[in-house]
Amino acid sequence: MPVGTRGAVKSVTHRDLVDLGAEIILGNTYHLYLRPGDGLIARAGGLHRFMGWDRPILTDSGGYQIFSLADRRRISDDGAEFRSHLDGSLHMLTPESAAEIQLQLGSDIAMVLDECIATPADQDITRMAMERSIRWARRARARWRQILEDPGASGVLVTNTGQAQFGIIQGGTHPALRTESAQATIEIGFEAYAIGGLSVGEPPNVMYEVVAQTAAQLPDLAPRYLMGSGLPDDLVECVALGVDLFDCVLPTRNARNGQLLTRHGPLSIKNAQYAEDPLPPDPECGCYTCRHFSRAYLRHLYVAGEMTAATLNTVHNLYFYLDTMKRIREAITFGSFEQLRLEFRQTFSRRPQH
Amino acid sequence: MPVGTRGAVKSVTHRDLVDLGAEIILGNTYHLYLRPGDGLIARAGGLHRFMGWDRPILTDSGGYQIFSLADRRRISDDGAEFRSHLDGSLHMLTPESAAEIQLQLGSDIAMVLDECIATPADQDITRMAMERSIRWARRARARWRQILEDPGASGVLVTNTGQAQFGIIQGGTHPALRTESAQATIEIGFEAYAIGGLSVGEPPNVMYEVVAQTAAQLPDLAPRYLMGSGLPDDLVECVALGVDLFDCVLPTRNARNGQLLTRHGPLSIKNAQYAEDPLPPDPECGCYTCRHFSRAYLRHLYVAGEMTAATLNTVHNLYFYLDTMKRIREAITFGSFEQLRLEFRQTFSRRPQH
Repeated sequence: MPVGTRGAVKSVTHRDLVDLGAEIILGNTYHLYLRPGDGLIARAGGLHRFMGWDRPILTDSGGYQIFSLADRRRISDDGAEFRSHLDGSLHMLTPESAAEIQLQLGSDIAMVLDECIATPADQDITRMAMERSIRWARRARARWRQILEDPGASGVLVTNTGQAQFGIIQGGTHPALRTESAQATIEIGFEAYAIGGLSVGEPPNVMYEVVAQTAAQLPDLAPRYLMGSGLPDDLVECVALGVDLFDCVLPTRNARNGQLLTRHGPLSIKNAQYAEDPLPPDPECGCYTCRHFSRAYLRHLYVAGEMTAATLNTVHNLYFYLDTMKRIREAITFGSFEQLRLEFRQTFSRRPQH
Repeated sequence: MPVGTRGAVKSVTHRDLVDLGAEIILGNTYHLYLRPGDGLIARAGGLHRFMGWDRPILTDSGGYQIFSLADRRRISDDGAEFRSHLDGSLHMLTPESAAEIQLQLGSDIAMVLDECIATPADQDITRMAMERSIRWARRARARWRQILEDPGASGVLVTNTGQAQFGIIQGGTHPALRTESAQATIEIGFEAYAIGGLSVGEPPNVMYEVVAQTAAQLPDLAPRYLMGSGLPDDLVECVALGVDLFDCVLPTRNARNGQLLTRHGPLSIKNAQYAEDPLPPDPECGCYTCRHFSRAYLRHLYVAGEMTAATLNTVHNLYFYLDTMKRIREAITFGSFEQLRLEFRQTFSRRPQH
């Protein structure tokens, strides 16, 4: 899922996203709640109508952004009190209000509010946050059900009665806590389950172990969503471990910083070595950028500070991610997934290419 | 002609431009000469190949930007000595080198170097600059012919042997000087002629008078290009006076500042009154932006500082300009141009709409 924080995937248009084959995008509840406001969006008919995007949207709960505010937030069992990064105004997000906001936004998939913690964290802190996340998940699910059973009486302007709500498994890197979290969350019962609290600095092999152990405990038929991951090789490895859905800001954010992905690894387009390079970023790539533009031109646009650099680089990186997922799906269909995985391990490196 | 200063029309892709029906764009010699350099572009096969744009390109001479450098340039009969706005390095642009650079860029239409002056200017200063521009035009034409007669011997890497070169009529707002300039420039002989030195702050009716008087003296069969104009009503009025070609940064620059054009006049999308407005910027407009997005969404993108705001606003404004020119051409074909002109006068206002 390309990330469309504030109702737009940065530096590309919806037309670009449809061309790229994006089937779903992510919106950030924290940002949209503060500006333009979920009330305004609901009155416009919901986020789909407001932003003119008719494919699925997943919204996060807003929790992750609030926990990132550090000294501008205070967490209690009630919820998270925080000050807006825009104007310093005081707000309170609870498991209930996070569900209400997302029903007003009318996303197709809503996430429950969970407590994110700084990592690495010891087992006691991780347990406390995990247990609070379960209590919050219960409240979020109850409020969400209550609203959908009688939207008229809820005071909430529900713009998508077909919304699904996903639970989130926490527990850090502690297998016993992950197991407890998975069991309790499945017991509450959600349309599907996400694995949270990863991609926060732990080494890849640790992440893969936690994903493997957690995914194995989730219902076979419900999609599994690994939140906030990851690098291209993470996609391949985590699909192997049973993950279906990913979101990550890296393809779009790195594009704006001049980092383009290739099958062999990232390429930093600002390097002087590309000043007269007539090749496209990735000669094997079929995206609009690679079919029309050279590294020399893309470097020029980047160095000159042209906005088009961000657009063309983003188109390429999103294509790379979405194409990787497409190749994975095809390989699974044709029984050649292990071969693709091996190939990826042999050719893709996280280190910059020269 | 949309303006593509540094080898890109700001905030849109070539794909957007082709969708919009842009048949020609403008590139700035001053900017491209400094970065990435006309030598690099020539080695890449010329500006078309470098930037991946296969429709016509007009390049200016670089003069206008240099004259805008104020205390960073010194003009003599030889040419213009200036310091780069990028790194302060010293450069010299002459009528000959401006022709050479543009042949290396390989644009389809090159402009001669002319002397631009601060306005309003008295008749003596205007005469001196006009006369120097004629001397420069003679040298520019001679060097340009010489190179094209024997590119191999010129030391210039000509990337477009089919280039046309346009002369420029100067003379400020003084009819006698305009006449002298026109006669001398036509005597040198160019593929076509431009009217320079306007849209520099004079009132519209003064500009129209000069355009009328100058255009009347130009050859019937050569296209006339009014440089750096203008507002939408200028297009209609100046076509009536005999102008064929225009370039202007307003549609793109104003778009980035949140000003959208409508048939009734400009609309400032940042205004709070549009926060919940479900209408497109111009309900009568057929552009991608108006077909898909509301004023409320565009205002949100602008206020949030999303790059997509610039893209969507630029698409709209360029459509407005190109559509205006298209409607003018159709009206001329069908004999209804005077009716269109009258309609434009009655409905279009330069004042912001509410």
